[in-house]
This record gives sequence, C-alpha cells and structure tokens, in this order.
Amino acid sequence: MTKQLKIATIGGGSSYTPELVEGLIKHYDEFPVTELWLVDIKAGEDKLNIVGALAMRMIKKAGLPIDVHLTLNREAALKNADFVTTQFRVGLLEARGKDERIPLTYDVIGQETNGAGGLFKGLRTIPVILDICRDIERLCPNAWLINFTNPAGMVTEAVLRYSNIKKVVGLCNVPIGIEMGVAKLLDVDHSRIRIDFAGLNHMVYGLDVFLDGVSVKDEVVDKLTDPEQTSFVKNIEGIGYDPAFIRALGVLTCPYHNYYYKHRDMLEKQHKEAKEQGTRAEVVLKLESELFELYQDENLAIKPPQLEERGGAYYSEAAVRLITSIYNDTCDIQPVNTRNNGAIKSLPDESAVEISSVITKDGPKPIAIGDLPVATRGLVQQIKSFERLSAEAAVTGNYDLAVTALAINPLTPSDTIARAIVDEMMEAHKQYLPQFFK
Amino acid sequence: MTKQLKIATIGGGSSYTPELVEGLIKHYDEFPVTELWLVDIKAGEDKLNIVGALAMRMIKKAGLPIDVHLTLNREAALKNADFVTTQFRVGLLEARGKDERIPLTYDVIGQETNGAGGLFKGLRTIPVILDICRDIERLCPNAWLINFTNPAGMVTEAVLRYSNIKKVVGLCNVPIGIEMGVAKLLDVDHSRIRIDFAGLNHMVYGLDVFLDGVSVKDEVVDKLTDPEQTSFVKNIEGIGYDPAFIRALGVLTCPYHNYYYKHRDMLEKQHKEAKEQGTRAEVVLKLESELFELYQDENLAIKPPQLEERGGAYYSEAAVRLITSIYNDTCDIQPVNTRNNGAIKSLPDESAVEISSVITKDGPKPIAIGDLPVATRGLVQQIKSFERLSAEAAVTGNYDLAVTALAINPLTPSDTIARAIVDEMMEAHKQYLPQFFK
Amino acid sequence: MTKQLKIATIGGGSSYTPELVEGLIKHYDEFPVTELWLVDIKAGEDKLNIVGALAMRMIKKAGLPIDVHLTLNREAALKNADFVTTQFRVGLLEARGKDERIPLTYDVIGQETNGAGGLFKGLRTIPVILDICRDIERLCPNAWLINFTNPAGMVTEAVLRYSNIKKVVGLCNVPIGIEMGVAKLLDVDHSRIRIDFAGLNHMVYGLDVFLDGVSVKDEVVDKLTDPEQTSFVKNIEGIGYDPAFIRALGVLTCPYHNYYYKHRDMLEKQHKEAKEQGTRAEVVLKLESELFELYQDENLAIKPPQLEERGGAYYSEAAVRLITSIYNDTCDIQPVNTRNNGAIKSLPDESAVEISSVITKDGPKPIAIGDLPVATRGLVQQIKSFERLSAEAAVTGNYDLAVTALAINPLTPSDTIARAIVDEMMEAHKQYLPQFFK
Amino acid sequence: MTKQLKIATIGGGSSYTPELVEGLIKHYDEFPVTELWLVDIKAGEDKLNIVGALAMRMIKKAGLPIDVHLTLNREAALKNADFVTTQFRVGLLEARGKDERIPLTYDVIGQETNGAGGLFKGLRTIPVILDICRDIERLCPNAWLINFTNPAGMVTEAVLRYSNIKKVVGLCNVPIGIEMGVAKLLDVDHSRIRIDFAGLNHMVYGLDVFLDGVSVKDEVVDKLTDPEQTSFVKNIEGIGYDPAFIRALGVLTCPYHNYYYKHRDMLEKQHKEAKEQGTRAEVVLKLESELFELYQDENLAIKPPQLEERGGAYYSEAAVRLITSIYNDTCDIQPVNTRNNGAIKSLPDESAVEISSVITKDGPKPIAIGDLPVATRGLVQQIKSFERLSAEAAVTGNYDLAVTALAINPLTPSDTIARAIVDEMMEAHKQYLPQFFK
Ligand SMILES: [Mn+2]
Ligand SMILES: [Mn+2]
Ligand SMILES: [Mn+2]
Ligand SMILES: [Mn+2]
Repeated sequence: MTKQLKIATIGGGSSYTPELVEGLIKHYDEFPVTELWLVDIKAGEDKLNIVGALAMRMIKKAGLPIDVHLTLNREAALKNADFVTTQFRVGLLEARGKDERIPLTYDVIGQETNGAGGLFKGLRTIPVILDICRDIERLCPNAWLINFTNPAGMVTEAVLRYSNIKKVVGLCNVPIGIEMGVAKLLDVDHSRIRIDFAGLNHMVYGLDVFLDGVSVKDEVVDKLTDPEQTSFVKNIEGIGYDPAFIRALGVLTCPYHNYYYKHRDMLEKQHKEAKEQGTRAEVVLKLESELFELYQDENLAIKPPQLEERGGAYYSEAAVRLITSIYNDTCDIQPVNTRNNGAIKSLPDESAVEISSVITKDGPKPIAIGDLPVATRGLVQQIKSFERLSAEAAVTGNYDLAVTALAINPLTPSDTIARAIVDEMMEAHKQYLPQFFK
Repeated sequence: MTKQLKIATIGGGSSYTPELVEGLIKHYDEFPVTELWLVDIKAGEDKLNIVGALAMRMIKKAGLPIDVHLTLNREAALKNADFVTTQFRVGLLEARGKDERIPLTYDVIGQETNGAGGLFKGLRTIPVILDICRDIERLCPNAWLINFTNPAGMVTEAVLRYSNIKKVVGLCNVPIGIEMGVAKLLDVDHSRIRIDFAGLNHMVYGLDVFLDGVSVKDEVVDKLTDPEQTSFVKNIEGIGYDPAFIRALGVLTCPYHNYYYKHRDMLEKQHKEAKEQGTRAEVVLKLESELFELYQDENLAIKPPQLEERGGAYYSEAAVRLITSIYNDTCDIQPVNTRNNGAIKSLPDESAVEISSVITKDGPKPIAIGDLPVATRGLVQQIKSFERLSAEAAVTGNYDLAVTALAINPLTPSDTIARAIVDEMMEAHKQYLPQFFK
Repeated sequence: MTKQLKIATIGGGSSYTPELVEGLIKHYDEFPVTELWLVDIKAGEDKLNIVGALAMRMIKKAGLPIDVHLTLNREAALKNADFVTTQFRVGLLEARGKDERIPLTYDVIGQETNGAGGLFKGLRTIPVILDICRDIERLCPNAWLINFTNPAGMVTEAVLRYSNIKKVVGLCNVPIGIEMGVAKLLDVDHSRIRIDFAGLNHMVYGLDVFLDGVSVKDEVVDKLTDPEQTSFVKNIEGIGYDPAFIRALGVLTCPYHNYYYKHRDMLEKQHKEAKEQGTRAEVVLKLESELFELYQDENLAIKPPQLEERGGAYYSEAAVRLITSIYNDTCDIQPVNTRNNGAIKSLPDESAVEISSVITKDGPKPIAIGDLPVATRGLVQQIKSFERLSAEAAVTGNYDLAVTALAINPLTPSDTIARAIVDEMMEAHKQYLPQFFK
Repeated sequence: MTKQLKIATIGGGSSYTPELVEGLIKHYDEFPVTELWLVDIKAGEDKLNIVGALAMRMIKKAGLPIDVHLTLNREAALKNADFVTTQFRVGLLEARGKDERIPLTYDVIGQETNGAGGLFKGLRTIPVILDICRDIERLCPNAWLINFTNPAGMVTEAVLRYSNIKKVVGLCNVPIGIEMGVAKLLDVDHSRIRIDFAGLNHMVYGLDVFLDGVSVKDEVVDKLTDPEQTSFVKNIEGIGYDPAFIRALGVLTCPYHNYYYKHRDMLEKQHKEAKEQGTRAEVVLKLESELFELYQDENLAIKPPQLEERGGAYYSEAAVRLITSIYNDTCDIQPVNTRNNGAIKSLPDESAVEISSVITKDGPKPIAIGDLPVATRGLVQQIKSFERLSAEAAVTGNYDLAVTALAINPLTPSDTIARAIVDEMMEAHKQYLPQFFK
C-alpha cells in the first residue's frame, strides 16, 4: 500500500499549473505524490476547471497513480496535506495592471514586485497568506508551505514574523535562471555550475561561480563585460552593465537589479512599452488568454511550449527539485528564501533572505557567507527595510507605514510623491485592502 | 609659567577662521591656548595674511596671551601641536563649482558632500589628509586631529582605515543646528534640549529628543507636521515632509536628507538655482570675496556678523565645545564622527559614524543605541557603502572602484551615467587626482 | 507647594536603611524627597519599627520635611511612587546560611551570589521581584525600580526578560569600591578617578583607569603586582594575583573574581572560616543583632559607624548618586546593571550587563565598548549562561534547568554533584520555592 | 596519462599511517592518488622506514599505481603537493607523558589537548605548523593543508590568524565517533544518521540528530539517560551524565566534555590510572612499541586490527572522506574545523570552529546555526579564549600570556598554580620552546 503524499496548490487555476504537473510527473520516482489538490476561489473556477482537466490528461498520459482534485474548498484541500504550494494572485492580472500603470503616471517605475507595485502586491497578498497559515496550523501542521506567490521575499518575511508557521520556504526561478545563463555563457552543462547566492528575493547576487568546483567568476565577469561576447551574453541578464562597474562590483547580479543600477533606462523603457505594447500585465493577460485557449484542447496532454514565454522558465524545475529534496532529505544546495539565522551578518537573524542553503527534510539550512560585499550591502539593507515596513503595514493596516515604506524605497523620488501614489493605489485596490478601510 | 597649549589649523586662510578664533577667545578660561598656528598653501597666502591679521586684532582686543603664527610651513605648524584642526578645501571653490555643475548636466544632483560631488571631493581630499596624518605621526603623535574638512564622514572613515592615527574626530555643525532649531521650535533655551543622534555625517538622525530629560519627540514631530506651526518651523530643516512619512519614520532628519527623501524636488531646485543665481559654490565665492573685503578693514576686531550667512552657523560653538571637552575630560555628550565600536549594530565596528558620544580626554566614547530604526537602516547602510568604496578608490586610485562608488549611490540614475560623470569629473579635477593618472 | 517625590523601599526593615537615609539627607538639595515609605513583611515588622524610628530621628535631626511611613502594606507603599528600591532578602539570613553551608559539605564554594548559593538566592528572589513588577505596572507605572537585591545581575536579567517593566536598574557597590580603592592606591581624590567598567554584576572588569582623564592603567596594574606596595594595596581587592597573570589580563578585576581565578584558595578559606568563625551569614547575623541593638538607642540620630563593617561601604553613595542623576537628568557616567543594547558585542542585546553608562532621566545609556578583552570573554559568557538558566528555572520551576544551571557553573565540580546539591537545597529552602513543588 | 595527485604526510612515521593508507586504497576510485610522500624528522627515521615499508606492501597487495616516497626532506615532500596532511608530535610521546604527569602533581587534570597539556602541546606545535605554512606558500601554494595534529582547534586557529594559508582544515575523529555511536544506539546504519555539529574541537556539541532526515534527538537523549539502556549506551561517550542535566542541556556532548562537566571524577580517575597503569602516554607508548613490532612483519600487508585500540577509530574514514570530497567537489556535509565566518554568532568570524560544513573544492562552507544554545555558550567561549591566548603565546613567546591562558582555563584551580605549572612545564619542554628562551 502506498503511503499518502498529498500536495495542495492554492491558486491551482493558475496558468503555471501545467509546469508544476510536468515536474511532478518527471520526478515521480523520487517524489511519489498520491494526491494533488488544486484549489482556487470562486472567481477562478473556470480557469481551475480548464487547467485541472489538462493536469488530469497529463497524468493519465504519464500513466501515474496521482489523484487530482479540483475544489473551491480550501479546508478540504489543506486537510492533512504534506506540501502546500501557493501561486495565487490577489486581484488577478487586473490588479497587476494598476500596479504597473499608476506609478508610471507619476514618472515612477511600475513593477509587480518592486517599488509601489511590490508594496501594493504585498499589502493585498500578505493578509491572505497569513490566513492560509492559520488554516495550515489547524489542518496540516506538519506541512511545508512552499510559497511562489510574489513578492516572495516580503511574503516569506511576513510568514516568519507574523505567523506561527516555521516550515515555510519562498521560491523564485531567478537564481536557477542565472545558473542556466552562466552554463550557456560557458557552454557547459548546467549540472557543472554552482553559484553561491546571497541577498534577497529579486535582489540576489551570485557571490562566486564555480565550474566543477573551481571558481570561474573572473572569467564570467570578463565575458559579461566583453562586447565581442554579446551574442552569447544575451542568455544572461545584466548585459549592458558598464564594465568598470561590474568588475568592481565583483559579483553577478540578477535581472531585477536593473531597476536600481539602471533606474533611468528602465523607467524610459517602461514608458515606451506602456505606450507601444502595454505594460507587462497587459501583455501577460493576452498570453494567458491564448494559453487557456490552448489548455482547453482536449487532445493536449503535455505542457504546451508556449508557456515558457509566460515567464516561468525553470519554475517547474526549481519547484520540484526543492520539494523532492525536502521529501528525501537530499542535502543538496539550492538557493531559497529562508530565515537568515546569522548567515548574512548585516541582516537580522529572523529575516527572510534568499541564499544558497542545504535542503534537508528539516528545511533549508543557509550556508554562512560572513557578510555581503560592501558594494552590495547598502541596497540589500534598503530593500529589506522596505520589505519589513511593507509587511508591517500589510498586517497592521497602518497607513503611515505604507507611505513610509514607499518613501524609503530607492525607486521613489520623494515622500510627497510616495503619499500621492499610495493614496491613488489605495483607492484603486480598495476591495483587496480591508485592513486599511476599517 | 603657562603650560604650552598649541593649536595648528590647516587651511588657516579659510573665511571660517574668525569663527574659530571667536570661540577660542570666548572659552579661553576653560581652554587656555598659548599658540595658534594658521597654516595654508602658497595659493592661499593672501587670504591667510588677511584672515590672520584679523585673528591677531581679535585676540589683541580680547587682551589674551595667545600667539598667532601665520605660515606656509606645515611641519613647523604641526611640531608638538596639541590639537590639529583641518578646514582646507583642495581645489578651492573653483573645484566645488565643478562638483556642482558637472553632475547637473547629466540631470543628477551636484552637491558638495553628496553623490558625485561628495565622491570627487573625497578623491581630492583623502590623499592630502592621509599625508597630514603621516606628518602628525612624526611631528605631534599625541595630538588630536579635529577634522572639519568635508566630506567629513568619508574623511574620518579614511583616517580610521588607512592611517595610523587613532586620535581623530570628525565634526559637523548639522547636529548642533538641529538642536538649536528644536530649541526655537519649542521656545526653550538650547541647554535644556538633548537629542540622541545616530547615523552618518550629513545623514544623521535624531532618534529621540529630550527637554529637561523628558522625551518630547512626539510633540516635536507633531509640530513639524502641523501646517499651522509653519512660522516656527522654518527654524528647523526638514520642513515640508509629508506628515504620514515623518510620523512613521519616527525620528528627526537632517537637512541633507532632503537629497534622498525629496530627491526630485531638490534636483529641480538645483537646476533652477544654477540658472538663476548660480550654484552654491558660485554664491559662496561672491560671499567670500565680500567677507575678505570686510576682513581687510583694520578697524575690524570681531567676527563680522555677515559670516553667519556663509553657512557656518554654530561652527565655532561645535568646534570649541569639542576641543575644550577633550582638553578638560568633561565627559559631556556631543554628536561627533568617531569609530562605531559596536554602538550601531548593523554598521562595522571599525567604521566612522556620527553619534552622540561621551567626550573624554581619551576621545569620544559612543553611546550604544542597539540598531537604527528599520526605516532608516537601509539608507544609512547605502551611504556607508558609498563612503567606503569612495575612500578605497581615493587611496588606491582604482578607477573601477570610483565608478562603482558612484553607481551604487542612491542619487545616481545608472551605472553608465555614473561612468560618464566620473570620466568628465576625473578630467576636470585631473590636477588634484594624481593617484588616478599614474 | 512642593511637588511630591516619593520613594518606596521594599525590605525597608533592613539594617542598610540608615545608609540610604543618610544619603537622602546629604543629597536633599538635589533630590528633595517628600515621602519615604519603608515597607516590609510581617516577619520583619520589629526590625522595620526599630530602623524606621531611627530613620525618623535622623530626618528630624537634619530638619528636613521628609515624611517617613512604615508599613506592611506593599500596595500602599508603591502607590504613585517615583522610585522603588528593593533590598529585601527572601528567607533572611537563615536562608543565606544554608546557601553557604550546604555546598561546602560537597567541597563546593558556598557563597551568597555565586555558584549554588547564587542560584538558590535567585530561585527564591526572582518570583518575588516579578510579583513586585506586576504591582509596579498597576500602581506606579512611571516609577524607576532600583534593585539592590542580590543576585542583582540575575534579578535584573529576570526583570528585563520576564516582566513588562523597562525602567529598572540593578545596582551594586563593587564598582564604586574599586574606584575608591584605586584612588587610595594612587593617593588622589576619588573624584579624579574614572574607570571604564564592563562585565556582569559581581563579575565586572575595569577595562581602563583614568586619572584626570589620562590612562593610568599600567601604573595601577604595576602597583597591584609590586610586592613592595603591599601596604597600600590592601585597599583594593584582587591583591595577591600573580603578576604575570594580571599583566597579561590587562584589566582590573573585582573581589568576586577570586572565586574563579583563585578557586582552590577560596574554597580552603571558606572551609577554614566556616570551622573557625562561621560562614559569612553567621558572622553577619551577629553583626546585625548588634546593629539593631544600637539602632534602638533613642539618642542615636545618625548612621552608626559600625554599619560600615556590615559590608555596605559606599552603598549609600552609589544609591543616591544614581537616583539623583536619574531625577536630575545629570548625564554623568556611572556603572550600573542595565540592558546591554549592543554595548558588549558577545553578549545578547537584551541581557543585563554591568557597565559604565550615562545616567539620564530616561535611564542609563551604556557606552559601547566593542567587545570584552579576549581573556575575559569566556568567563563572562559562562556566568551569563548561568544567570539566564537560573532565571528561567526561577520563573518556570523547571527542575532540570536548575540542575543544569548549576552544572554549567564554573564553581561546580560535576553534573552529579550539581544534582545532589540542588536536591538538598531544594528541600532546605522548600518553603520559599513553591514554583518547584506544585 | 594520469594527472599527478600528490599527498605529502608530515609525521609520516606515525603509527597511524596504515590507517591513512588503508583509506587511500579503499577510496582510490574517487581519489586516484599518484604519489604519497611520507616525511619525518631524523629522530623518527626508523619508524618512518618501518611504517613506510608496510605502506608499500599494502599498496602493492592492493595492486594500485601509487608511488610511496619516504624522506627526511620536507621541501621535497611538499613540492607541488595537492594535499598536505600533518600528524606529527613535537617531542613525541615522551613530551606527552610530561603534559600528563606534571599537572597531576598539582592535583590538576593532565591531558593531551585540554588544560595545561593542551597549552604546552600548542606551544610546541604551533611554531612548527607555521613554519610548514611558510613552506607551503613557497612550494605548493595551491595545496590543502589537512591538519590532524593536536590540539587541532588551537592549531587551526593559529594557522588562520598567523599564517597566509587560507586552504586549511582541521580534522578530528570525535564527531564521526559520535555518529557511529548514535547509529549503534539506534541500531541503524551509520549512513542514515546526520548530526548538526557545532562548537570547537574536542568541545563539539550535536545540536540535533536526524535519522533519515527526521529529528530523533529526544529519543537519543532519552536512551542516554535511561539506566535500562546501559548495555547499548556504552557505545557512545557521555554515558553517566545525570538525566536532569542532559535533558535540559538538550544537546549531545563529546567525550572530552567529561573533563568539564565531570571535572572531579575525571581528576580522580587520572590519579588512579597514573598510579595503577600509567598515564595515557605511557599506555600508548607500550601499544605503539607493540604496533611497530607488528608493522615489521614482512608478511603483514594490511592495517593490523590492533591499531584500533590505539584510539584512532574512524580516523581513516574521516580523513579520506574529507580529502575526496574536496577533490571531487562533492558538497556533502562533514564536521570540520574551519573559519567560523558568522556561522556561530557569539564567536569571532575569523576564529576556527568545529562545525557541520558543506565540503567543496573551494573548501568547507559552514552552515549557519544562529548561536549555540545558551547552556553551552559559556564553556565554548571560555575554551576559545584559552585557545586564542595560547596561540598568541605560542607565536610571540610571551610568558605572561602563557600563564594567563592557563589561568583562565576552567580546569585550572588558580592563577598561582597556573604559574607554577607553566614554570615547571616550560623547563621540562625547554628544548621545544625556543620562542620563550630567547
Ligand atoms: Mn521571482
Ligand atoms: Mn557638515
Ligand atoms: Mn553587589
Ligand atoms: Mn581529536
């Protein structure tokens, strides 16, 4: 008789679900899941049914004994789950659209997880996550909560500080994307590359890069700064950094660093894109509707390749390698969002950091790095301050804190603009922010 | 017989010197200086003679037995000095003008001690200060180095990290100005106000404010955010902060915080001023020439009141209260730039911080604050990163580091603009930056 | 009309009370107390009446308008108090006698505040102190709790960790005794000496010693190690240290360090004294009964000189200088037990330490020392571990923790002896340890 | 053609060498060593030849292409080595005998790596190790130094602080012994057990114990305290701890903890053994002479089973698994002595700690634990203080420091006894302590 192994996926109607299902199928030997519960809210019922049907077809085609359950009943989904994954979006892409559009009208970056957009996504999401945590305590206290919901750093910070759940990991596909990019840059298999990651979610640095265990960081940095290498370099984000800058910085950056290290360029780019092709949310909305069109095809029983364009490259890979390593106590090294525990000296022990960690059945154990390089320490501290104030504002509904969280964000041009943006966005997202309208 | 008590003032030809002399006269009882050596470079000889003659007239009028020496010989001035004060400006106001003008052409803040201007002032000044430190080691190893030369935080950091001098204090009139402003705001005598300062030079916060030992921080913050109080409030900088922001920030800011918390407004203001009245350097140049006109009046034997407009309010007060407290082991509390020594947890022990300290004959002893409030921690860390990279670039002549120091500064819009500004300013200040042109 | 200024002294029947009263009389100008409430328990009523009557005679003789109240009603005493001082002894000298005698039968140091004695004094005292804290919260939430009750370090730790009272200071006369000893050793007035103290209560070190602000540490250490200076040196404890040891240690020790650095000698001495003259409790019992004999003399209206032999030298001085500095926001430096707040790096921020602090109306502000010298760091950490486990055992009544607290104490020869001592003392003090006999 | 892979073993004439050779043979597939250089000093030439001949016979029997070189020329041995292992003993067992005997005459523990014995072994060994480090810099700068020479913690500390060698790991068989003991206690295969180790060499704790990734710490502690389990429990040291103590301590101890937690018993045991069977050095001397008798047997071509009694159980296992993991960048977790790097908060970043680390080709990366449990923190800090003072004394030849290192050690009864022991041992070991007799 098979031992039960149950996954509950909150926001199961997401277009990403086939990614997850593909991963579960591929790694079934190491991680023999018996039940997959996809749960969503009423508003997402149609999408849940479409993507759920595709999931069932995929599993059937693979010939695996995994029961798929589709439900709007979160309690039923959570009951006795072993792993809970979250990939929901409060307010859907419509809310994301506002996160992107409104700041731009103030000539301020509008982005899903950074600046004003990140703040409001956090304000909408954190109360829901904490509510899920209370359910987990009650219904599946031994489950691991694997959070993919953005802003994943802020959300993980909030769970660590404001819930009783200790078994939480925040996950992002950015680090694995950097690994893949470096592998391509060096033209070697991905398995031969190891990167020492440290920082925060969407603000993670590669402190060193190893090929078969030998540091090749200088070589990678050289390639990144060599104009002749341009053709290869497009594989890894960060392209375009000034060579003097990246040499002295001495670490690999992540794509989101562009919002800070290339602030003015990114702002211009956003204005241009918003005008010409729509913001990212608007582009994704179209992509998603095409994807769900595809998903409805009853002959489709694999993850359609078009999903990759949606932006979730390696998402399945990252998710399933984390879950299987926890399940099997593999003790391999993966970059995840977890409690700092002293691994990065200038950040609080109890804060969430994104860092290379040993993945055990007892959770991720971060590898001590001493401290971040001086050149990177300030920006990381600033974003952590932003995350902490945002999380506290989300929990308390304290308006002043929300304004101040935004005012101290490096993407914000002034306190008064911060307040104006907060006021407009607070109103725009009112229905998802009851804590501020008591 | 009087014990010798010798002060050497490097950059003695500065227009500020009458401030210092006034302070020495006023506090002669507690600090019976016997020799004041004003030393300057050849290019400053005329100003030295003018201001030196005024100093002599002031002392004569006061009837005090202080010998004033004017010299271009730094060795003679330093020999056996008890206190060395530095108030020189490498490249004079002309260089400052470039620090202000060039960044503005890139639509970037141009300011003496912040951003690109601060970086280049540091690059020019630090090698000279370290050279003075080597002289001090040789000629007056027991002297205290009291540094007023800006950027005072970066300079103090450099002395602590790259010289053998341990007896150094960096001093600024910003904290005392905040105290005076709060006293006026509350309409009480300055002596009844005590503020717990912590942070960095030109990025210092008032963590708490006490009137006769009782916290009145909330009252002060309320007044600062109350539009009806405007008439009083002009006495303290920071006016104009959004009430929600300043309430949740929960600390007093310093005037220079405007460059960060009101970045866009300050940039607009700089453009406007540069166009209409000239940059600050240009204004000061005019003020200075008027001042030296006044100083030449042989009937003048006091500090002329016009000096206050120059910007050095309370400079004399701050300088002399520090020196007399060291001399007399007074153990009173003053905000100074000194070695952190664990007083602010998230900054390195060995870095310079600006913090309320007990002033003893053995130097300032910083009072432990635990850590800065979360909302302020990020910006402080970022400026400390900037200061450290700048200081290292100044010492090593490493061009990449100079670019990166500027690129990570929160006032800089991108790495490529950082490089362009560095290139143009490096060329403009070439004669003062031999370390980069070897 | 005089503003009310009320002190409540818990354990007011103590033989030390005349010390306190003398101090209040002497410093009345700076600290114009209007009401002194001496409160004690039923068992101490007679002593309370005797010492209370003496207090009244002393105040009358001084001609001061201080009302003295004697009461067994703690609530009445605490109501609206401005300062609460505690100097009680749970179980009286009889309990102390057991703390000294029982460990000795295991060939283990028996001492009031160290090792097994310190543990059991803590177990008896901490619940009572926390009960007083709950009363303070209710009856005089703005009062300062000045704790003299031993083990003062452990008690302060417990108040900081297990009560809601933040306005607490632990006080001991050891540091002032060292200052006085050094002054005599150098034959200078006490006011000219300043010592940088850091460590824990009864484990405090003098990191540096200043005469008129100039370090004389090396001279003091030399004198302490110079056999020819013996006649002077008896004024300061620590005499007898091996010169090589004290030179490399490089700091001044306190008398209680002898239990650790001269463990074997002290144990022999205790055996000898217990045999020949009785333990300290037994000696003190006799002294106290003589003192109370004196106190009953209706012609006595001053603190009798015999009180000094009781061991409380400078107790009055230390207590009143602390209280008046808080009251007047004096900002002078005093060594007290307060929250570490980062002042000593290798100890937790939230732990009690004994350290030179600036005394303000807002409480003591510890001066950052960086970290303790390497040679002293281990022992301090060990005693802090002992204090924390003891405090936790006192609060929780966890027997295992009590055993372990003693087992890790450096004076304890083994875990099994720790347990045997705990078992015997638990039984001996049973009536004062209800938390362990539920 | 095979790539060269050269090991140089300093102290190659040690009786332990067959252990190492057995490990190399067993793991040849993963670690294809081509050259093994056994180097010793003139005084050890006979033993080198005996054990070297056995090594050659073992390798020949295994049919492996490993060249064994026997030499007295350290330079030749080190030249281009990939790994340098050290297992020498300055002064041989004769010196160890003095380390054990002399302290006992003062009624003080005499032990190879603890207290006075540990101090003097450090004083003799550290200058030799630092000399080897200088050779490594010159002759094989890319080699890893794997140090087995005791006191391994103090030696690793000294290399980290006083040499330029960064590629150093200190290794001990205590942690692996604890793992094996726990496996036997639970009657499971060793590979299923993982222990989170943290602390110092010979003062390491098992913070948690996992069976197949699930914590079984409570079960292990219960078994250790259950008298009925005695028969199993003898497999793991620490048996005999008082149940209350070990429960509240909440961690696994190592055998050497007995010297501290059972100080009195261990001292009695040492007196008894010294009287009845000789100290450990004396016993080992006999064992060694029997071993070398065996080793000379030309028919012997395996590690003789009698070697296990010598005390080096699992030594081969620990050594070879470390070396092969470095060589192959295995990234598995092993407990080693390495730079703390923030992994244990209350110890300096730059100090050596013994801690579970990820073993990479770039060296061990310690896993952050936050801080040690409160109950264990003090003793660890104390031993680290002892190690640091001892290492500094070894390097500087500062006599006062040597006395103070011993005086602050928890096994030492007083400063004057510390000095007496130091004086006697300094004389006894004079020929190996030139730094103190300049
Ligand atoms: Mn992400
Ligand atoms: Mn300034
Ligand atoms: Mn005391
Ligand atoms: Mn060992």
